[in-house]
Parts: sequence; structure tokens; C-alpha cells
Amino acid sequence: MTPETREACEALDRGDVVAPLRAQFALDAADAADLIYLDGNSLGPLPRATLARVRQVVDEEWGEGLIRSWNTAGWVDLAPRIAGKIARLIGAGAEEVAVADSTSVNVFKALAAALRIAQADAPPRRVVLSERGNFPTDLYIADTLAQQHGARLRLEDADHLPAAIDDETAVVLLTHVDYRTGRMHDMAAISRAAHAAGALVVWDLAHSAGAVPIALHGDAADTAADFAVGCGYKYLNGGPGAPAFVWAHPRHLRRMDAEGWRQPLAGWFGHADPFALETGYRPAPGIARFQCGTPPVVSLAALECGVDTVLAADAVGGLDAVRRKSLALTDLFIALVDARCAGLGLSLVTPREPSHRGSQVSLAHADGHAVVQALIARGVVGDFRAPDILRFGFTALYTRFVDVWDAADRLRQVLESGEWRDERFRVRAAVT
Amino acid sequence: MTPETREACEALDRGDVVAPLRAQFALDAADAADLIYLDGNSLGPLPRATLARVRQVVDEEWGEGLIRSWNTAGWVDLAPRIAGKIARLIGAGAEEVAVADSTSVNVFKALAAALRIAQADAPPRRVVLSERGNFPTDLYIADTLAQQHGARLRLEDADHLPAAIDDETAVVLLTHVDYRTGRMHDMAAISRAAHAAGALVVWDLAHSAGAVPIALHGDAADTAADFAVGCGYKYLNGGPGAPAFVWAHPRHLRRMDAEGWRQPLAGWFGHADPFALETGYRPAPGIARFQCGTPPVVSLAALECGVDTVLAADAVGGLDAVRRKSLALTDLFIALVDARCAGLGLSLVTPREPSHRGSQVSLAHADGHAVVQALIARGVVGDFRAPDILRFGFTALYTRFVDVWDAADRLRQVLESGEWRDERFRVRAAVT
Repeated sequence: MTPETREACEALDRGDVVAPLRAQFALDAADAADLIYLDGNSLGPLPRATLARVRQVVDEEWGEGLIRSWNTAGWVDLAPRIAGKIARLIGAGAEEVAVADSTSVNVFKALAAALRIAQADAPPRRVVLSERGNFPTDLYIADTLAQQHGARLRLEDADHLPAAIDDETAVVLLTHVDYRTGRMHDMAAISRAAHAAGALVVWDLAHSAGAVPIALHGDAADTAADFAVGCGYKYLNGGPGAPAFVWAHPRHLRRMDAEGWRQPLAGWFGHADPFALETGYRPAPGIARFQCGTPPVVSLAALECGVDTVLAADAVGGLDAVRRKSLALTDLFIALVDARCAGLGLSLVTPREPSHRGSQVSLAHADGHAVVQALIARGVVGDFRAPDILRFGFTALYTRFVDVWDAADRLRQVLESGEWRDERFRVRAAVT
Repeated sequence: MTPETREACEALDRGDVVAPLRAQFALDAADAADLIYLDGNSLGPLPRATLARVRQVVDEEWGEGLIRSWNTAGWVDLAPRIAGKIARLIGAGAEEVAVADSTSVNVFKALAAALRIAQADAPPRRVVLSERGNFPTDLYIADTLAQQHGARLRLEDADHLPAAIDDETAVVLLTHVDYRTGRMHDMAAISRAAHAAGALVVWDLAHSAGAVPIALHGDAADTAADFAVGCGYKYLNGGPGAPAFVWAHPRHLRRMDAEGWRQPLAGWFGHADPFALETGYRPAPGIARFQCGTPPVVSLAALECGVDTVLAADAVGGLDAVRRKSLALTDLFIALVDARCAGLGLSLVTPREPSHRGSQVSLAHADGHAVVQALIARGVVGDFRAPDILRFGFTALYTRFVDVWDAADRLRQVLESGEWRDERFRVRAAVT
């Protein structure tokens, strides 16, 4: 039942088991400025623990420990340790995840691996199938890589999936939750359809890892995913441009081990014994071969603090509780927009069906960019995605029910007043 | 003339125009512990400015500015601004350098570009020529990439270069200063020989950028390099695992522009208009296409502070003054080892000829690992490289002549006393 007053939202906050997790974040400045941050799907906020940890790494480990900290401060163990933590958020084994590089670079590695396996068939399959609305970097990497493999990238609308998977499809590359619409794919159903057609699936978890329970192993062999990648700076709160992660199913890792297979970015940190400094490459066993260059220590330290903010949900019911609250928040926002912003030019883009929705709500408005700018001026930070989408992330770890109420209320005010028509909201910044 | 007393070294420090630059570094803890840090060729020390800058980025820009800082704090301009600064250290134009990813990933991009250009010949050349002693990550990446391009990696000893370059050679991939021996290649001579044979050259500047004046454009068309990469955490003092850089000669950039050519890691930050979020990839003009994923903001901020410590040399004569001091330091160390460690089982690995020497001195000893450990216990931090090399970096920005005296003196003590034979110095750490 939708609360009909702000007081009712306050009551929801008082009863919210996830609410205590908000104290993990340094949102004081936002609170002081009466700022409602609904863009954690683009950049998660700063965890309180991060600054102290980064100071320790910079000042003590680097400044005082110098080169010795590779051993004494455990810098070599940092990436595998974080990988093990992320694994718990995506239904994977600790030994199946590597933390390294950017999401884009990991899409390259994972897709290259998947293509190689898929193309071992005779005659080789030559299509990488993705969604027209997939995040551009996935499409750019896939298009370029497909060309290098004598394959091609085929794009379909989400509504045509999984039906578009056929016997030409080598790999299906999809983002679990669409960055613009907030629509969530049925991971198990797509994986099953791909496998039934003899194809592999690579999932980009950028907009779901940390926000939605994910079961990469599925509930049966045919619903398991093949490869996955994800982003460190959205729901994992790792900081701007944080390192990303990559996952592979153990059956593929075993095969890579058996065949001594190397991934295309075969750098020294993916070697079986990096510090032996051998002339010839020998891949590290399992997922470790997906490492490439020297790990970015300071960024990794910040990422770990971010991942820890999500793991803290273990104390309040885990990602299932986070997901329940997230759906309550997005349900509430949709209901409030329906009830209080009717006739003001908005339409709902995100699916009403909860199981098809990630942790964001997207609305369309013909002058979406100006409306978002005017809303930011009123202290509600969402963002805009061309051509007409207003995007609001509702991260259960720190978003309150009153925030949802206030956001919908200010949205109504911006639209009713027409203040978004002001010239200053027409200016486009470098990053929108 | 070699100083024969510690006092004479103190006098050299008093007369050293580069000496004031040492105050840029947070070496107080090292000084308090009587530590002599001779491993800046592996990990540069912490600049004093870095912690405050990192705190600003984390606390204010990320914590308070949140997503808005992409615009308000200029996060999108960070990588190009640092690239422009690095360009000044390597004799390149600001528009020719990109800061992104790791050195390993940039070797992949640069070598892929060079191979593509070189293989446009008919019949295509099929050899990537490198040095047996090149840093392993360069060899691993090159071997893997060569296989993907129907080419092969051929390894020769440094003494056989440039003579080994022939009409089968597509690309010569070399590290300017050898990480183990400290030997420096004659960049112009190699580039000329490669071009005369119709090959291209990719230089890895990991052990020279920031320590040695570099002229990537050469003094004539045939002595210009083709591509280069370099490391952010050695002589650039950017912090452990700092982002790396990649350079391409403008003639290749113009050709890539004319042909609309994409590099293999065609991520969204290398798109002509990343935030337009177009479905199709259009490469950014020039070197900007060598960007890939979202820039690592915190790491970039730290890297900029490090690069600034080298640019500060402009006030005292620039990299020429740094190089003069560096050679004086390494000359002194060699002379002191000759004079005071004779008969103690050491032999000089680094060339005596200054023009063939980077900014480090390597010595061989049959029990090198134990000797390095014993020396660290005496407060001289160098490192060991198998099978028998003791490696000492002499970074002119912060190393004093008395440090050289003391290091040679403690080395003599360790060897004369035989203390390196102690069991505790036999233990091998994860990272050597």
C-alpha cells in the first residue's frame, strides 16, 4: 500500500531493517545541503571508511613502507581478496573472480574467451548478439573484437530476446540491467535459451552487482552463465573509475587450464609466477590469468571499502533484504509519480513488473535534460540520458523512503512551476 | 674525480643544484630510520603533495561533489592534462600522449597499432623483434599478440641489436633502459636501423621516462620513434600501480585519423563523443582513441602529483640537470664499489660508459638475494633480480651523494662481515 504522506514514509524508515547501513556513507555534506542523491547507479557515494583506508595506504604503506609493502602490507593479495568478496555478491566462488582493469577491458577479455570457445565449433559461429540499447562501451568493444575474429555484431531490441538467439549465434553479450531503462533481463531464461542454441552468454553486471541478488551459477547446468564482468564504482561504491571485475564459469576455467590457454591481454600479473620474471608466458591457473598489469593499489584499497559497505548487508538479511527495500523504494517512486505528477508530461520507462526492474526508475519527458538540471538545482541529483530519459537510482543501502517522497515532490514542483524552462537549464555540460 | 671521504660527498650535496627537489618527497620516515631508498626505479617514493591531493579528491570531489565532479572538478580533463605534462618529459607534443590503463595494456595497444601499420605491406612482415632480457610483461603481451596476427616473437640478445633487424621484421619492441642491467639503448640509432629496414619501433620507457632526457621525435625523420609506452609508478612517482601512458608519432596519428582506424581496445572513453552514448563506435581523433574505459580518478590525481615532482626540475635545469646528477651518482657508486668492495665477490653488470647507462647500477653476486636482504636489514633498500643481480636505483630528484657513500659503505660491511650468510636472509618473500 502506497504511503500517502511524508509522515507515512518516515514511519517506513523507522521500520526499515536496512536503514542502519546508511551510516556507512559520508552523506553529511549532502544532508547539510538538503541533497537527495539518486545517482548511485552512476557513481556510488563515499563510504566513511574509505578516506582513512586510503590515507593509510598512501601515507603509511606507500610513504613509509615503500617497495617493501608489496610483501609487508599484502599488496599482492589485495585484488584476490576483493575478488572473493565480490564473488559472494554474485553467487560465485571466490576462485572464479578476478578484480582488474576497467569494465571495458574486462568485456574485451571475457568476450574474447567466449568467442574462442564458441568458435571451436565447426563450422564456426560468426555472430555476437547483443541489444541495441546495451551500454555503448560493450557494443564498441564487441564490434571491434568481432571484426578481429571474423565475426560480426548483431543488435536486436530487448523485446526480441531470447528469440533472436539462433544457430549462428556464437556469444550473447547483454547487460543484466539496462543502464537507460532500468529493465532487468531474466538471466536464467536467457542463459538457458543461449545454451539450448549452442551459444555462450557474457553478462555485464554493471547495473546489478551489489543491488540485486545474482546467481551466476543458476539453478541447473543450463541456466548457469558463462562469463560476466562488472563495475566497481556504481553499486559497489568503489570510487570514480574504480577497478572492475571479471568472472568465468569453472567449467571454462578448467578447460583453459587443461589447454594452457591464455587470454589476449597476457600481462605479467596473469603469469603463473609473476616474480619469477620468466621469458616465456605460462598462464596462472584459473581466473588469475585474467589479471594483466601491476594492480592499482590505491584504487583497490578504495574499492574494498566500497564492497564492504554492501557485504555489511549480511547483518540485516543480505542482498535479499536490500532487494526487497529497493523494490519498495522504486514501487513508491512510481506510485508517487503516478499520483502526484499526472498530466505533467512524464511517462514511465522502467517496467512496472518488479521482477523486470533493477534498482532505478527512468521516466521520459520531452525536455528531459532541462528537467533534470532544474531538479538538481532543487537538490535532487538524478541524471539524463539521451534522448529524453530522466534516470533515478534508488540504492537501498542509503536511500530513505522520505528521500523518495521528497524527490517526487520536488519533481512535481519543478514541472508544475515550469521553472525547468529557464535558460540556465539549457546549458549542456561535458558530462551529462 | 671521485670523492674519497664522506665529507667530500657532503660537499657535493651542498653544491648540488638538484638537491632542493628532495624536499618534495615524504622521506622523513626513511630519514628517521636511517633508510637509504635506492628502489625508486621499482616504486617511486611518496610526494608530499600527494596525500593532500588524494584527500581532496576523495573527501571533497567524490564525497561532496559526487557525480557532479565529472564536470565541476574537471575529472574528464585529468588524463589529458597529465598526458600533456608527461609529453614534456619525453620530447613529445601534448596531443600525442594518452594516460590510461597499465603499461601492459598500453604495450598491447601500441604494438597492435604498429603491427597493423607494418603488416599493410605485401608480403606482410611476420616478426616482432625484441630482446631476450626485455621485461617479461612486454614479451608476454608481444608473444600473444604476434600469434593473433599470424606473426611470431623473435628474441635476440642486446648485443645483436640493431644488426638483427632485417626485412622480415615488422616491429622492434624494446625497453629503452633494461630493468635488470640498467643498460640504455641508443634510441635514435635503433630507430634509424629499424626504419632503414622498413620496420617500426615501439619503445617501453618504463625505466627511463622521468630519469633520462628522451627525444621521441629524434633529430631527423628517420630517428623518430613510432610508438612508446611508459610506467607511472617508477621515476614518475605516481604510486603503486599508477596509470601508464602511451605515445604515437603524429604521422601515425594522422594516418589513423584518415583511415578511421580503431585500436583493439575500443572502449567508450576513446570514442569521439563518449557522452553522446552512440550505438556505433567512432574513434576520437588522434591519440585520444587510445583511451578505453572510465578514467581511474583517484589514481590519476596521485599520478599528477608524481609527474609534477619531475617537472619541478624545470627550475634547476630540467631533465638535463637531473641526468647530469644521475650520472654523477652512478659514477660515484661504481667508483666506490671498485675501490672499497674489491675482492668481495661483486662484478659490475651496468655499462661503465655513461651514455649506455640509465639511472641505476646493477651488480652481480653469486648469493645476490641474501646480500640484498642483508643490505635491507642495514637500511639500504635496493632489490634483487634473478639469477644473481643486485639492483640499485639512483634517482637524482631525492638521492644524495652521501646516500651513495653510505650505501657503498654498508654494502662493504655486509660483504666483509659475511652477515648475509645468516639463515634469515635466505627466506624468499612473495615479491622479491
